[in-house]
Amino acid sequence: MKVGILGLAQTKFGELWNKSLYDLLEESQYRALQDAGIEPKDIDGIFTGNMCGSIFSNQTNIASIASDILNRNISSIVVEGACASGGLALRAGILAIESGYHDIVLVNGVEKMTDIDSKDGVHGLSSALSQDWEHISGATFPGLIAMISRLYMHKYNLTRDQLSHVSVQNHSNGLLNKKAHFRKSITIDSVNNSTVIADPLTLLDCSPVSDGAASVILCSERFAKNLNKELVYIIGSGNATDSLAMSQRDNLIEWNATKVAAKRALGMAKINIEDIGVVEVHDAFSILQILGLEDLGFFEKGSAGKFIQDNLTSLNSKLPVNPSGGLKSRGHPVGATGVAQIVEIASQLYNRCGDRQINNNIKIGMTHNVGGAGANVVVHVLKRE
Amino acid sequence: MKVGILGLAQTKFGELWNKSLYDLLEESQYRALQDAGIEPKDIDGIFTGNMCGSIFSNQTNIASIASDILNRNISSIVVEGACASGGLALRAGILAIESGYHDIVLVNGVEKMTDIDSKDGVHGLSSALSQDWEHISGATFPGLIAMISRLYMHKYNLTRDQLSHVSVQNHSNGLLNKKAHFRKSITIDSVNNSTVIADPLTLLDCSPVSDGAASVILCSERFAKNLNKELVYIIGSGNATDSLAMSQRDNLIEWNATKVAAKRALGMAKINIEDIGVVEVHDAFSILQILGLEDLGFFEKGSAGKFIQDNLTSLNSKLPVNPSGGLKSRGHPVGATGVAQIVEIASQLYNRCGDRQINNNIKIGMTHNVGGAGANVVVHVLKRE
Repeated sequence: MKVGILGLAQTKFGELWNKSLYDLLEESQYRALQDAGIEPKDIDGIFTGNMCGSIFSNQTNIASIASDILNRNISSIVVEGACASGGLALRAGILAIESGYHDIVLVNGVEKMTDIDSKDGVHGLSSALSQDWEHISGATFPGLIAMISRLYMHKYNLTRDQLSHVSVQNHSNGLLNKKAHFRKSITIDSVNNSTVIADPLTLLDCSPVSDGAASVILCSERFAKNLNKELVYIIGSGNATDSLAMSQRDNLIEWNATKVAAKRALGMAKINIEDIGVVEVHDAFSILQILGLEDLGFFEKGSAGKFIQDNLTSLNSKLPVNPSGGLKSRGHPVGATGVAQIVEIASQLYNRCGDRQINNNIKIGMTHNVGGAGANVVVHVLKRE
Repeated sequence: MKVGILGLAQTKFGELWNKSLYDLLEESQYRALQDAGIEPKDIDGIFTGNMCGSIFSNQTNIASIASDILNRNISSIVVEGACASGGLALRAGILAIESGYHDIVLVNGVEKMTDIDSKDGVHGLSSALSQDWEHISGATFPGLIAMISRLYMHKYNLTRDQLSHVSVQNHSNGLLNKKAHFRKSITIDSVNNSTVIADPLTLLDCSPVSDGAASVILCSERFAKNLNKELVYIIGSGNATDSLAMSQRDNLIEWNATKVAAKRALGMAKINIEDIGVVEVHDAFSILQILGLEDLGFFEKGSAGKFIQDNLTSLNSKLPVNPSGGLKSRGHPVGATGVAQIVEIASQLYNRCGDRQINNNIKIGMTHNVGGAGANVVVHVLKRE
């Protein structure tokens, strides 16, 4: 597989009171076109990740909005896989290119989350849990992930400070990202002592509710070759699922869908995990960055907390993790996140990240996007060539 | 393009009080596997059309349910395009096969609509209108389509009886379909005199709110050839969009997205509209069957009502339309409809429709699936070879 990345864009993430879902999508799409140096007429398909426009914005049928913004009547669909909607939209766009029926496609992720009351917010987000087994009993994401945190801390002696270090590091990176929701340095103490959401998780263990959009323009290898310039390509795409209800799994602190998706993506790219030089991991909660890094294969199970604490995943380490600030600091407009991860890794490989640019010899990066509590995981491998 | 159809299934459509979304999907998926004579292990990807599980069933992340039902961890996504979700999921599945990364995929459409209060029903369905321009002003689908009906009746002298004939014919076909929501003969008088929903539309001009699921198993041409048997193939897929808000269009009674989607599908199939021997048209409201048949190219604009009245689209005519009973009689579980249309046309081409089987010399059929008020249209062409 080899699909070229022609253009990248991300709106500011945050509480954007003066921007509607339409505004966000419009800004993101046109910036991506501008970045690619192409016109709306060059696009022949649109794939938009959106998790819950129905509840958050009273709006389904967003595919039509996406093409209408470009004043085009091209093929356009919305892809949903909860918080993995963006990464899955990218995958659908890749398959469309590889099918030979599309040459240049626009992939969006978008979510407008703040313009609702909190009851609708919880309702929308909890719809990604099993309604039959989890949500119906009152379980919410923070509650379930708190249990996972406890279990992991108990089994692997993860300390509270180590857990806090995840958020501290992400905020440290996000401070350098002008598009991030939170640009604020935090300390171990501030994470430890912030409001308890679901013990042991505090407010600063949890990614925020954000508005935002991100867009990527993909092209076929044939088109890319004619450009005759260095390009970042997607060379691997892996998607795997697990039972929606966590209660139906054997192991709550090893997420099989991450393992399988990573294996598929790496296999397609014909590389090993050691070849990855930078990764965006789905840190919806601090513990999930630890689980993610282990299940992707970067660290032995039970060891990631120590490595993070020792700064072996910071911006200038051998394995920079979440240089964008991750979901915690960059923000988490759920349908946009997976595409924003691609924007970040591709931007890093293009050496366009300014203050937060990692070592520019790194040529291969990875993204890890999760829908639900490990229910649907999509992993992509990107390479500059 | 040539993608084989290996297996077909549709649950009963209707008010299925003892079936959950999970139950519907489970029944549909396993019946399709059984019909194809394959095992869950043979499937390597799932594409599920669902419009509004979030509001109707408190459930997003249905992709994970679909793969979990098969006890598989394969790639699985949900595709949304309002009432075209099913047809668009099929298109995504086709592209996945054509990409070469998938060999046998399962395409589902599912919606559980009846287990909610009517406020949520209206809220969910209206989310497919433009929130910014239509829904916010209180417009709903029946209201907007009523205006379209008036305009068309005025411009082309369509009579109330002709409009009613659409529903009468669809009910006449659905009477022969054991899976249909309504199996009841109706008359011109009963349509004319049923409760007014939005003048001139009466209750019997409107498709119902239904529960149901449908599934199709697709395979690559390479796989199909090894089977060495006559198969129905998808040979054309066209998808086109229009502005989401009807107010931003030049013409309300010619739907450009249908025209363009049909042109694309026919072009891909390398055939003309005259080659089509049977069609499932998206009759969410009676007037839309008339618009659809004209915009697809079967009849001159303004003439379809007369042809329908003259029984030139009935089951044993030269162009049987909606042999399943259409959305009006078979039912309209919104995310399932597009896949149910494929199930019907493929079943007709396989000569498996029993009492409602059309002339068995017909080899080419078409489906027409619409999201919103002409905002996203997907057309497929099927051929027995």
